Amino acid sequence: MSIFGERKKETLEEGFEFAPKFDAEGLIPCIATDYKTGEILMVAYMNRESLAKTLEIGEVVYYSRSRKEIWHKGATSGLVQKVKEIRTDCDQDAIWVKVEAVGGASCHVGYRSCFYRSMPFGKDHKPEQVVKLRQEEKAKTFDPVKVYGKK
Amino acid sequence: MSIFGERKKETLEEGFEFAPKFDAEGLIPCIATDYKTGEILMVAYMNRESLAKTLEIGEVVYYSRSRKEIWHKGATSGLVQKVKEIRTDCDQDAIWVKVEAVGGASCHVGYRSCFYRSMPFGKDHKPEQVVKLRQEEKAKTFDPVKVYGKK
Repeated sequence: MSIFGERKKETLEEGFEFAPKFDAEGLIPCIATDYKTGEILMVAYMNRESLAKTLEIGEVVYYSRSRKEIWHKGATSGLVQKVKEIRTDCDQDAIWVKVEAVGGASCHVGYRSCFYRSMPFGKDHKPEQVVKLRQEEKAKTFDPVKVYGKK
Repeated sequence: MSIFGERKKETLEEGFEFAPKFDAEGLIPCIATDYKTGEILMVAYMNRESLAKTLEIGEVVYYSRSRKEIWHKGATSGLVQKVKEIRTDCDQDAIWVKVEAVGGASCHVGYRSCFYRSMPFGKDHKPEQVVKLRQEEKAKTFDPVKVYGKK
């Protein structure tokens, strides 16, 4: 018995059976936001096993595409993400999880959010040159060398 | 001259040249949030052309995977997304855009956000049955039949 339903066109958008779409690699994108500030902390992927595990334990479990394995976020760094709410979208091909990020940081580079750089747009955009990013988070929350041993 | 830089390991995470990663289909995921509430409105994809166009015009332009074409959000419905801020993440393989959603709605089903359903987790999760979704947005913001002609 699976916890995932069958994908049926008539109930996907307006029904109440969870029938997530996993892509050709068996993955679904997951966006983690800070449950208090709404800030996006990170975007990663889940497979069937990691999504089921997340629902079961109430902490976020991803699938690492680079290491090709289940990735219980925080297992190495201690920076676990406690699930506060979890949602899916109209097509059920994405997951949004609102979390409490233990330690206040989610990015392996050391920042609170992985999205620590912004870019110009509209009248500030210069179409004839490479887009220059701008640092938005001023200081790292932790030292990745101390937490992971090496970068 | 491209507005996208070359992906170099040494500057990807801590440098300031925008070098987005497009997947095997030439796409990068993009998450749109409401710039005031922080709520995730939708998750969609961009290709090189739509990302460049977004930066140029300051309104969000996606790539529709189902229609296989550039998709200037709101061109049909009038519900454009005005860019307020746009960021990328550590690996530069995802885009976060904070938007003002004209008309107050972003989902083709009629809701403010595509993520109008949540699911149980932790002690409320029942591992022996299909996950039951719960409606979080109580009322639609617009009638899709009136806006699109048909669903």
